Amino acid sequence: MVKKLLIAMLALAMTQGAFAADKKTNVTDKKETTSMTILDKINSPEDVKKLSSKEMVELSDDIRKGIINRVNTIGGHLGPDLGIVEATIALHYVFNSPEDKIVFDVSHQVYPHKMLTGRKQGFTDPANHPEISGYSNPAESQHDHFIIGHTSTSVSLATGLAKARDLKGEKYNVVALIGDGSLSGGEAYEGFNNAAELDSNMIIIVNDNEMSIAPNYGGLYKNLAELRQTKGKAQNNVFKALGFEYYYVEEGNDVEKLISAFKKVKNTKKPTVVHIHTLKGKGYEPAVADKETYHWTTPGFLDRKPTPEIETYNSITTNYLLNKKEQNEPVVAITAATPGVFSFTPDFREKMGDNYTDVGIAEEHAIAYASGLAKNGAKPVLALMSSFVQRTYDQMSQDLALNNSPATVLIYWGGISSADMTHLCTFDIPLISNIPNIVYLAPTNKEEYLAMLDWSYNQKDYPVFIRVPAGEVISTGEKDTTDYSILNKYKVVSKGEKVAIIAAGNFFQLGQQVKDELKKETGINATLINPRFLTGVDQGLLENLKQDHTVVITLEDGELNGGFGEKVTRYYGNSNMKVLNFGARKEFTDRVPLEELYKRYHLTKELIVEDIKNCLK
Amino acid sequence: MVKKLLIAMLALAMTQGAFAADKKTNVTDKKETTSMTILDKINSPEDVKKLSSKEMVELSDDIRKGIINRVNTIGGHLGPDLGIVEATIALHYVFNSPEDKIVFDVSHQVYPHKMLTGRKQGFTDPANHPEISGYSNPAESQHDHFIIGHTSTSVSLATGLAKARDLKGEKYNVVALIGDGSLSGGEAYEGFNNAAELDSNMIIIVNDNEMSIAPNYGGLYKNLAELRQTKGKAQNNVFKALGFEYYYVEEGNDVEKLISAFKKVKNTKKPTVVHIHTLKGKGYEPAVADKETYHWTTPGFLDRKPTPEIETYNSITTNYLLNKKEQNEPVVAITAATPGVFSFTPDFREKMGDNYTDVGIAEEHAIAYASGLAKNGAKPVLALMSSFVQRTYDQMSQDLALNNSPATVLIYWGGISSADMTHLCTFDIPLISNIPNIVYLAPTNKEEYLAMLDWSYNQKDYPVFIRVPAGEVISTGEKDTTDYSILNKYKVVSKGEKVAIIAAGNFFQLGQQVKDELKKETGINATLINPRFLTGVDQGLLENLKQDHTVVITLEDGELNGGFGEKVTRYYGNSNMKVLNFGARKEFTDRVPLEELYKRYHLTKELIVEDIKNCLK
Repeated sequence: MVKKLLIAMLALAMTQGAFAADKKTNVTDKKETTSMTILDKINSPEDVKKLSSKEMVELSDDIRKGIINRVNTIGGHLGPDLGIVEATIALHYVFNSPEDKIVFDVSHQVYPHKMLTGRKQGFTDPANHPEISGYSNPAESQHDHFIIGHTSTSVSLATGLAKARDLKGEKYNVVALIGDGSLSGGEAYEGFNNAAELDSNMIIIVNDNEMSIAPNYGGLYKNLAELRQTKGKAQNNVFKALGFEYYYVEEGNDVEKLISAFKKVKNTKKPTVVHIHTLKGKGYEPAVADKETYHWTTPGFLDRKPTPEIETYNSITTNYLLNKKEQNEPVVAITAATPGVFSFTPDFREKMGDNYTDVGIAEEHAIAYASGLAKNGAKPVLALMSSFVQRTYDQMSQDLALNNSPATVLIYWGGISSADMTHLCTFDIPLISNIPNIVYLAPTNKEEYLAMLDWSYNQKDYPVFIRVPAGEVISTGEKDTTDYSILNKYKVVSKGEKVAIIAAGNFFQLGQQVKDELKKETGINATLINPRFLTGVDQGLLENLKQDHTVVITLEDGELNGGFGEKVTRYYGNSNMKVLNFGARKEFTDRVPLEELYKRYHLTKELIVEDIKNCLK
Repeated sequence: MVKKLLIAMLALAMTQGAFAADKKTNVTDKKETTSMTILDKINSPEDVKKLSSKEMVELSDDIRKGIINRVNTIGGHLGPDLGIVEATIALHYVFNSPEDKIVFDVSHQVYPHKMLTGRKQGFTDPANHPEISGYSNPAESQHDHFIIGHTSTSVSLATGLAKARDLKGEKYNVVALIGDGSLSGGEAYEGFNNAAELDSNMIIIVNDNEMSIAPNYGGLYKNLAELRQTKGKAQNNVFKALGFEYYYVEEGNDVEKLISAFKKVKNTKKPTVVHIHTLKGKGYEPAVADKETYHWTTPGFLDRKPTPEIETYNSITTNYLLNKKEQNEPVVAITAATPGVFSFTPDFREKMGDNYTDVGIAEEHAIAYASGLAKNGAKPVLALMSSFVQRTYDQMSQDLALNNSPATVLIYWGGISSADMTHLCTFDIPLISNIPNIVYLAPTNKEEYLAMLDWSYNQKDYPVFIRVPAGEVISTGEKDTTDYSILNKYKVVSKGEKVAIIAAGNFFQLGQQVKDELKKETGINATLINPRFLTGVDQGLLENLKQDHTVVITLEDGELNGGFGEKVTRYYGNSNMKVLNFGARKEFTDRVPLEELYKRYHLTKELIVEDIKNCLK
């Protein structure tokens, strides 16, 4: 289980076809410390200002080497950072950070900025890579103003900075860098709409690299294309329409041209957009040629070997969807700009044709759209990462649950993880399972997952969420014939006594281990239960347990507060049953190894058995 | 407590100055059944199609009488519905509902539609008013396609309908009516961005009445103004920029002109916007003159008498904010388009000046903006209704909590209510209290509220949410000197034994009643505790209770699942303490009287005492 994230990352890499070994590259450095020239001299933005144009070009090369070095060693965002190198140099040349405040959206574009603001060792020296996060973080540097990981946020945050500046009578530039897909998110638009009201300095750099994670979708991106084609002169201009001064820079990887544009807008008194056209992946040819694959990659991309195709929960899902398409079903596979995470590969997309929608980074729309599809007789299957489902709570509640629209929503990667604090997947159970009408299912193996998916696809009564299992596929080999329309019916996998273990989803295997360990340690033959439903309790079963059990434990791969286990505990509140809930604490963790988190939360078989023994005393 | 919603509604009406008695009106019908002429003949949209132009004008008058009759009798949305009468008639004249599908955004604009689709008795006959809700609802009619109450949703939902239609090879029009402020919400923009991708019929009617609930804010609304001034011909056109065909109707209350425009776009094969300029409140002069006051009103607006000013939690809050402004503090009072709910009156706004921001219907931006303000040394105080705070979960988690920005967010009307199912305020505790870093406080009286507000305003360590008490002001007369920086410290109000009552926020008074009733019934002198913090448990106190208590009960005015009480129950899971949690079930309730809900949830002193007695057996 500790390998879960790595496996998921690997699956992602595999499914995105991130095989660079046979491709020609212009970079030779691999896992060694890269030897730098100009970058050696840069310890703060002040040093950037001293450089000649020629030196800035050399600096670009050094920065690219650092990016590639880091990503090849510990993984991360490649294409977005390679594309924003010159713009970052130009920003630090023209503006005076940290007095002038630069806010990086999808802060995965922040690597060059980090290298120019005292954190280059996180890129040049593998030993220091883990010290520096892949996202903006004020704890690392005074040049970062927010912890940002989810996207579409910079304009709103910067509007707050600018308004506070104005109220306090201070003078400096506030710059928001947005792009790389972020523009399609509703929060970005709300921010633009309000930034336009500022009667003072506010500079928004729109980094237009023609891409989101996958290609961009939507009317806005057509307008960006029109603006690029006309060198910013098109009559249709969404930024001008919203009230912004507008500048266009065609050569967004030309430091001098960027500097010239940024100088023009520095100290402006009006909300201003500088639309820069950049090349995602610039400097690493495979990343230019295949922008989607190299948006984010696992370590070792420089000499990745093709790996054998294995069955994954991703492939199980895509096969299911393709099969529906082949049967001319009105299936609609939906993603919000992260198709690679679910193996919605270009091949899959082509095969699905009109039965596939990428809504862009627009999770709110994704849910409402799925509700509309379901209400009109189509079969939407929306795939979302756990961390991003929280971008759309109101739509889950109002557009979907209140309307009881029979859409299927697959939640991927849900569980405790060693991820950056901006991309935790710990919160989806409390988020989703307390909304009325929604059925949230937690399969524990392939057959169960397929049975749940098929039930959800065919039923017409509820919005159904399924927490796709993490890690390698577990197969029982026996078809699951459960009727999931009987809600909140838990499954007794093994009947025992004294202690009952209710082990949900990803943690079912841990439940099995706890049962075995408890037997070994105490001789107690515990009951093992697979609850399958995260959205309710099986009152009949819980009541029956009272007869010959004194302790019930719950295991869930997520935050305990507001989660699954507490519902079981509340049920037993007025009884003599002792209940222990195991899961994650309410906290933002930041790149903490899983082993450490499992120890902290008592999520090993040994620690759990110890707690049970204490409870039995 | 049962009067809570009425009091809140009254407070709202009062603070919005909804006094119509001395204003000239052109409507004389009051609480009697209105006598109709043309409307008598209309039982379905088919009947509309038979009318002459002149008859349609007469029908408009009849519909307006029905709207005024209903709102004066049971309260509701007045101005938005008066403005959309002609457009609704024209829609039903041109399109063939329900085959053509019309989706109403801010479905509070749906009254005329209801009157034309077999539900006129909900407007003409006071005895039937409560049968028909104030929002779109498929359970009422096949002409309604979704339950909609929150706003900005129609374009996304309609895009789903249109896509399903196309996949199934069907042919009909899908029409989304949006406007009255909805355009500023991020979901609306995500919807527009994706609707533009449809290569088929999709008609969006933008109802531009120059208003949100309060006046509109933001760049988009400046563009709408520019389009109005140029009769739709301005070069800057956000809809064209997003890829839509665009039509403008200056006289949006002229049925013939609307019919002509709708006929032009009927059966279009392209995503199309029809921008219609309407007059909010048309037909009732006071509602035209004061659009904000008459956006929504309580019953009896036709002959409202001025009421004496009394102290409310609204006035306590506005006085606090005005005082900060007078002291030249960098306070920023923020609303997302519902200033009247918090008594952010025109007078208050004028006095606050630059220290006031209405972001429009844009809760996501509101939270991120507040985070930016707080991080740059300003003092944001954001007021949100409980029902709308769920429009911004990700921003609460990422922009605010992850950054630990010391903003203050006031949650109004939080609690079980008899509201329409689209505007319940039951879910904010599970929503907010499981996010790390946030401190959610539940004051029980004026002094506590002021102390919490002042602590929050001055501290720099946490995002603080305060659930503003509902109902009349309760004052102890004694200043609260608690140091709220000691988190999760509960207050023992009265020390007793055997039974401990932990009564949060609005339900503290109920806790007191339960204590008295229990004493009377059983002689038990229960301990009464005011937890004050909804985001954590006071472990020391809970541990101590074990010494001389056998039953703990929790009371919270909101959903139990994922809420406050379950945290207490989990704490006691491995002990002999019996715990009973009282609060609301996980369900959407629809205009159910509070008395009935309290009975259903065992939230009366008698039922609670009975449960305690059973538990003590």
